[in-house]
Amino acid sequence: MLEALKTQVFEANMELVKKNLVVYTWGNASGIDREAGLIVIKPSGVEYERMTASDMVVVDLQGNVVEGKYKPSSDTPTHVYLYNAFKDIGGIVHTHSQMATSFAQAGREVHALGTTHADYFYGTIPCTRALREEEIQGAYEKETGKVIAETFKDIPPMCIPAVLVKEHGPFTWGKDAADAVYHAVVLEEVCKMAFNTSLLMQTSTGTMQKTLLDKHYLRKHGEHAYYGQG
Amino acid sequence: MLEALKTQVFEANMELVKKNLVVYTWGNASGIDREAGLIVIKPSGVEYERMTASDMVVVDLQGNVVEGKYKPSSDTPTHVYLYNAFKDIGGIVHTHSQMATSFAQAGREVHALGTTHADYFYGTIPCTRALREEEIQGAYEKETGKVIAETFKDIPPMCIPAVLVKEHGPFTWGKDAADAVYHAVVLEEVCKMAFNTSLLMQTSTGTMQKTLLDKHYLRKHGEHAYYGQG
Amino acid sequence: MLEALKTQVFEANMELVKKNLVVYTWGNASGIDREAGLIVIKPSGVEYERMTASDMVVVDLQGNVVEGKYKPSSDTPTHVYLYNAFKDIGGIVHTHSQMATSFAQAGREVHALGTTHADYFYGTIPCTRALREEEIQGAYEKETGKVIAETFKDIPPMCIPAVLVKEHGPFTWGKDAADAVYHAVVLEEVCKMAFNTSLLMQTSTGTMQKTLLDKHYLRKHGEHAYYGQG
Amino acid sequence: MLEALKTQVFEANMELVKKNLVVYTWGNASGIDREAGLIVIKPSGVEYERMTASDMVVVDLQGNVVEGKYKPSSDTPTHVYLYNAFKDIGGIVHTHSQMATSFAQAGREVHALGTTHADYFYGTIPCTRALREEEIQGAYEKETGKVIAETFKDIPPMCIPAVLVKEHGPFTWGKDAADAVYHAVVLEEVCKMAFNTSLLMQTSTGTMQKTLLDKHYLRKHGEHAYYGQG
Repeated sequence: MLEALKTQVFEANMELVKKNLVVYTWGNASGIDREAGLIVIKPSGVEYERMTASDMVVVDLQGNVVEGKYKPSSDTPTHVYLYNAFKDIGGIVHTHSQMATSFAQAGREVHALGTTHADYFYGTIPCTRALREEEIQGAYEKETGKVIAETFKDIPPMCIPAVLVKEHGPFTWGKDAADAVYHAVVLEEVCKMAFNTSLLMQTSTGTMQKTLLDKHYLRKHGEHAYYGQG
Repeated sequence: MLEALKTQVFEANMELVKKNLVVYTWGNASGIDREAGLIVIKPSGVEYERMTASDMVVVDLQGNVVEGKYKPSSDTPTHVYLYNAFKDIGGIVHTHSQMATSFAQAGREVHALGTTHADYFYGTIPCTRALREEEIQGAYEKETGKVIAETFKDIPPMCIPAVLVKEHGPFTWGKDAADAVYHAVVLEEVCKMAFNTSLLMQTSTGTMQKTLLDKHYLRKHGEHAYYGQG
Repeated sequence: MLEALKTQVFEANMELVKKNLVVYTWGNASGIDREAGLIVIKPSGVEYERMTASDMVVVDLQGNVVEGKYKPSSDTPTHVYLYNAFKDIGGIVHTHSQMATSFAQAGREVHALGTTHADYFYGTIPCTRALREEEIQGAYEKETGKVIAETFKDIPPMCIPAVLVKEHGPFTWGKDAADAVYHAVVLEEVCKMAFNTSLLMQTSTGTMQKTLLDKHYLRKHGEHAYYGQG
Repeated sequence: MLEALKTQVFEANMELVKKNLVVYTWGNASGIDREAGLIVIKPSGVEYERMTASDMVVVDLQGNVVEGKYKPSSDTPTHVYLYNAFKDIGGIVHTHSQMATSFAQAGREVHALGTTHADYFYGTIPCTRALREEEIQGAYEKETGKVIAETFKDIPPMCIPAVLVKEHGPFTWGKDAADAVYHAVVLEEVCKMAFNTSLLMQTSTGTMQKTLLDKHYLRKHGEHAYYGQG
């Protein structure tokens, strides 16, 4: 069943590896068929090298496995919660990509600092509050979805298709699984730029000596240049 | 028309990907035939994987499309403005390369700090002022060109073939499209070095213990060395 | 003898290169056959390009070479000490991977800052005290094993399968050589995230101007979008 | 003439590219035949892609071109000065590798901070003083060699086979051209670790919440684990 969606979801998972967002099995992508009310998601802890489209697992919107020889990703209850809470999204991705995870560990939201961010995220990418002790010890993965939905109670999810879960890492979404992967790539890039920017904003330098600037520029440019084969 | 220039501009765009300056479709290169008064530029939002030389778009110096099955890059009015303002340049590149964009986000010019910079840029690489509200809401892409030209009113563009547009990213230029790509690569490298340098200038360390230094150096060097197969 | 273990250890050593944890010959992996009481380890200073499984060296739990045409890794006494001290481990890896070594040089333990760390290390990854002068000038490599064991006197080694040796670098272990490599990869990733997190925790930024955020988001999204081919 | 040495020097130059120490043509390697008193060096500004062993240029210890269809590297007088000053060295490399150049731009020497450094450099890697105005405007490249030799007046060059030239970049040397390349690779790695270490030494973090640490560790380890296929 849902062969086309399985292929899409499989390819989205493989794309995460190709884009260097995933180390070992640290990530998962899913997609939903809204009419059928069925979600296709990566199996838990299976190595990317030996995974095929037919290994994808089908679950319903209550999180019950409908088809699949493997257990679904241990983060499945988070995906299920988000598909129920955000009616417009068609795909979800979770990674531990390096810089987005670093922001999550710092408990720091990602402010819009330039047009790279603005092209995809209409304002600050939020970081959730920390999960409470009873949430962690309860239905942890479902509570993770719940705290994301809580964070977005005043934000349209399709305008900010990403969140950082505190002390954990990023989730992104989109109109389908491929779009969620796209947003995961952009998020990581935007986080790297924000990291660099925030360090640059608290440092400064002087400049090199003018004589050396002249010497090097003029040995390569203008009529007295002597670098290269002339 | 302009087949040779189309090939040059196409190759310049592909080179941006090869040099890791571009994520997805975030960049564009153009070139000009000064005699014909015609500019060749990348189409808007087309994936690099399926782009060919014949997809390049031809526009005139007023920004009118002269030939092309696609819409030109949404940044075309910026390129057009710069070709009109800077009479000596033959190619322009715009990217969101990671570190140059980080400097632009920090609103920080790039001071010459060493000969790597001095070999290509004859002094500080400037960052524009922020665009004003009416400029953003007006002919935004044209105003971007205008604020770059304003920034260079006392700088010969061929001596500093790069600029950072505040809260946006870098534009570079050169004698042709390939030369503009070359300067985009150098700019990114120079920005990374400036970033590292400015962090190093505010930190310091002690040194390791002398006994361990001796031990490790002398287990590999001199007559009592015992590392390796001897 | 021990052909299967030699192949495992050889492949673990090659995996260190593939995962970019090793520059030149700076690393070594070993495995143990607990029943036979024999350790298989990489030869000293042999280039990875020309190394084969049959070049692996067999030593006993006293560190005597039992078989091998090459001298074993100069770090062999450290491995031997750890196999004797930690009865549950089946493989050991030593690298000078960049960020883990930087933590070791700073003499800094790696605190658990997020779930990436928590998935593999049950708490802080410790850094040893500095070796004393007489330890360095004595049986240095054996003393390195000893200071690691001392550091773990109250920590179950399989719960925190990694350590930083001060002013030196990381050692990791696991149920076999491949598992020790896996932990070396995770350690490096966790250290990079901890590095980024600790820098983020002492910086901050404002946000870009709202008008530019609106402009860029809305030129790509919604009914007035004009980016791309429409 | 000197075909074997030309091949060695050519291969050393190509290795700089393979090891990612060189952008475009920013680097050069040379080797010397001490008996013949002849140096083989890379030609100036020739692209690595089309360079062959027979393009290498032969110069004598006074810097006169003895053979070669191209001009030698513009840094040749620096190499010549160093071969005359340091009688034991057989090869020299100059790069603008990113982190070593950043240290040079900061005018900062590289202290020994760990055994990675100690394995190759027997103490601090020095940074030269800035060149004086008359030195820059005079025989600049020769003066660069001179200020390096001045920096090493109390240091045996083979014990510290690297230097940073202030506001410029690194030179390394060794028993032959390949050895000089090896030291250029190690220097860049050691500089990256020193950069990271110095940033780590001025930051700190707390730790994540204990409940979440427990949750994640125990969902993957021990009898109640539920991650993976079980």
